[in-house]
Amino acid sequence: MTRPFERISSKVLVDNPWHRYCHDRYARRDGSPGDYYYVDMAGSSVVVPLLDNGDVVILEVERYLLGTKLWEFPIGGLEPGDDPLHVAQKELAEESGYRANRWDALGVFAPYKGVSNEHCHVFLARELEPGAQALELSESIDVHVVSLDEARRRMLGQAVGDGQSIAAFAYLDRFLAR
Amino acid sequence: MTRPFERISSKVLVDNPWHRYCHDRYARRDGSPGDYYYVDMAGSSVVVPLLDNGDVVILEVERYLLGTKLWEFPIGGLEPGDDPLHVAQKELAEESGYRANRWDALGVFAPYKGVSNEHCHVFLARELEPGAQALELSESIDVHVVSLDEARRRMLGQAVGDGQSIAAFAYLDRFLAR
Repeated sequence: MTRPFERISSKVLVDNPWHRYCHDRYARRDGSPGDYYYVDMAGSSVVVPLLDNGDVVILEVERYLLGTKLWEFPIGGLEPGDDPLHVAQKELAEESGYRANRWDALGVFAPYKGVSNEHCHVFLARELEPGAQALELSESIDVHVVSLDEARRRMLGQAVGDGQSIAAFAYLDRFLAR
Repeated sequence: MTRPFERISSKVLVDNPWHRYCHDRYARRDGSPGDYYYVDMAGSSVVVPLLDNGDVVILEVERYLLGTKLWEFPIGGLEPGDDPLHVAQKELAEESGYRANRWDALGVFAPYKGVSNEHCHVFLARELEPGAQALELSESIDVHVVSLDEARRRMLGQAVGDGQSIAAFAYLDRFLAR
């Protein structure tokens, strides 16, 4: 008999360049079968870019699904086999233009545990050097430099916050308090 | 011509009791069409249950997609037309057993802005009374009462954190600092 919360079967319903949408059968608490529909995603890397003077680089990002711009930290998705740090470095450069010489891993969280298996890797980027953005046609991103307090105020104060950036902030707070 | 980041067409690929999985065509930054695959979800409500002595109720929740238990605050999904506060009250009672007599709305965030249009509504629940859980067969949840500091330590200290609960904590911090 299948143990509770173990997979019985799995089927990819939709495969696209960004993720897979899947339907599993699994054993519920009493062993009876249940259905689970979810996004299968290799993961993502989010970067907190901290300047030498204590200011932070934040992005104003057009979000199609929400129909608005959000205050965010740079973030990008992993493809299977990708190294999270390598993706963090690539996304920081492409989205913000900055390159960093010093990197620290701050933690890992699941942004959407009920519907996606994605693990989001949080990095702190320091010793920054400015440069040019390299955006994709799917992206519209403005770069801002503000104090840490102002970044927190904007991220929590907008009508809809970006949960992933706000969670990354909590890992930063923990790191800076040590 | 369609303006950047406006919808051109939309199609539901999979409909299930929990959400819809959709494929849109939309206008990219230069107006050219792009594809967007995403989860269409009415929203969710997450509850920070704060006891009179300053302790907080947290849950240890079996998460099928991650293959592990997570430290979380109570959370539940909305169906179209649901009132976020009503869902918050229902989920707090069902998942933790507690009922609250005092409710405050702390903020709204998008937990997974790149792949889901879900808005997560954050509530503070106070003047709590304990009671019995009413779990679904898809749920396995243990209830714990710990200090705020211990709750933060567990949520940020686990191998994989729950981004939604960690973001909710940030909205609580902002509320308590006022």
